[in-house]
Amino acid sequence: MALAYDGAIQRLIDAFGRLPGIGPKGAQRIAFHLLSADEQEAADLADAIVEVKAKVRFCDVCGNVCEASPCSICADPRRDHTMICVVEEPKDVMSIERTREYRGLYHVLGGAINPMANVGPNDLNIPQLLGRLNGDDVREVILALDPNIEGEATTTYLSRLLGPLGLKVTRLASGLPMGSDLEYADEITLGRALTGRRDA
Amino acid sequence: MALAYDGAIQRLIDAFGRLPGIGPKGAQRIAFHLLSADEQEAADLADAIVEVKAKVRFCDVCGNVCEASPCSICADPRRDHTMICVVEEPKDVMSIERTREYRGLYHVLGGAINPMANVGPNDLNIPQLLGRLNGDDVREVILALDPNIEGEATTTYLSRLLGPLGLKVTRLASGLPMGSDLEYADEITLGRALTGRRDA
Repeated sequence: MALAYDGAIQRLIDAFGRLPGIGPKGAQRIAFHLLSADEQEAADLADAIVEVKAKVRFCDVCGNVCEASPCSICADPRRDHTMICVVEEPKDVMSIERTREYRGLYHVLGGAINPMANVGPNDLNIPQLLGRLNGDDVREVILALDPNIEGEATTTYLSRLLGPLGLKVTRLASGLPMGSDLEYADEITLGRALTGRRDA
Repeated sequence: MALAYDGAIQRLIDAFGRLPGIGPKGAQRIAFHLLSADEQEAADLADAIVEVKAKVRFCDVCGNVCEASPCSICADPRRDHTMICVVEEPKDVMSIERTREYRGLYHVLGGAINPMANVGPNDLNIPQLLGRLNGDDVREVILALDPNIEGEATTTYLSRLLGPLGLKVTRLASGLPMGSDLEYADEITLGRALTGRRDA
């Protein structure tokens, strides 16, 4: 019985199957897509993988991904260097940039405090954040961590750590997401929306 | 505003986003996974993509994917060379092999007749199938196409084409899938199950 494909195809299916969010059927579908795709599409993908490992690094200032350190945001004189928005991952920077509501700098922690996964404050870019607060003329730090257990724990930790430094420490508002329905809001979200109510 | 990542990461996200079944968020997740994965995992994936394009070809006999033609199934003397199972795609061969119920040969059409997508009988490996039926000592052809409109049309076409050749032409049974519930079966499937009823 031939229960696996000939060498190269099976190796490609296995390699895709190891990526996050791709199951065995998806990996098979992608492998056959690449097999029938033109040479250029397959070569572009292979090159992009090699290139990202060779070129991409982390910004020495903010910890975001970049090709040259400091990154384009840290190096931009038109941005507001008195504000730092603290996020967990590089992709969170992109999410906030898409709102077009923020013109300050960022600091990427590289995760959140998670005792279950053995991630403590010292495993994150927290010393680098303190270093920036000592040297720069920063006036406000916005804590923009994920609204889940690990993010909340990290927010509380940072809020206590930064409190004595005499700068403004804020966090993102919790409440009902736009376009949602009060009836289907979970009780914690609805509770936060009530607590954080403001003048209409 | 930085609404796209620095060069190499964005190129990798774009390249993954072009693959079937991967959306923009999934592509971003995979790109960051590879960025933080060890060098070897990323290199293995890039190598597997290049290798599959370089090594994999189609079997001159059955049209299945292989690294050497004829493929390992066509070249296996222990398999029953009097039966050919006709399928649409190489992945269908693997699905039937996994049942461990079939010991004959295969013929991969490379698709199904689909007038909407301009795929006619001449765009499929049908002439090659006729060639095998002339030369080989084949006694039965099993039509194992997908049970959808295109597959049914192709089954009907092949059944009429092969009928006059004096060999047994069969097709897969239609009916209720195992583990399913009569109440939730669609009417066409249930109708097929009734028409195809057999002695209990």
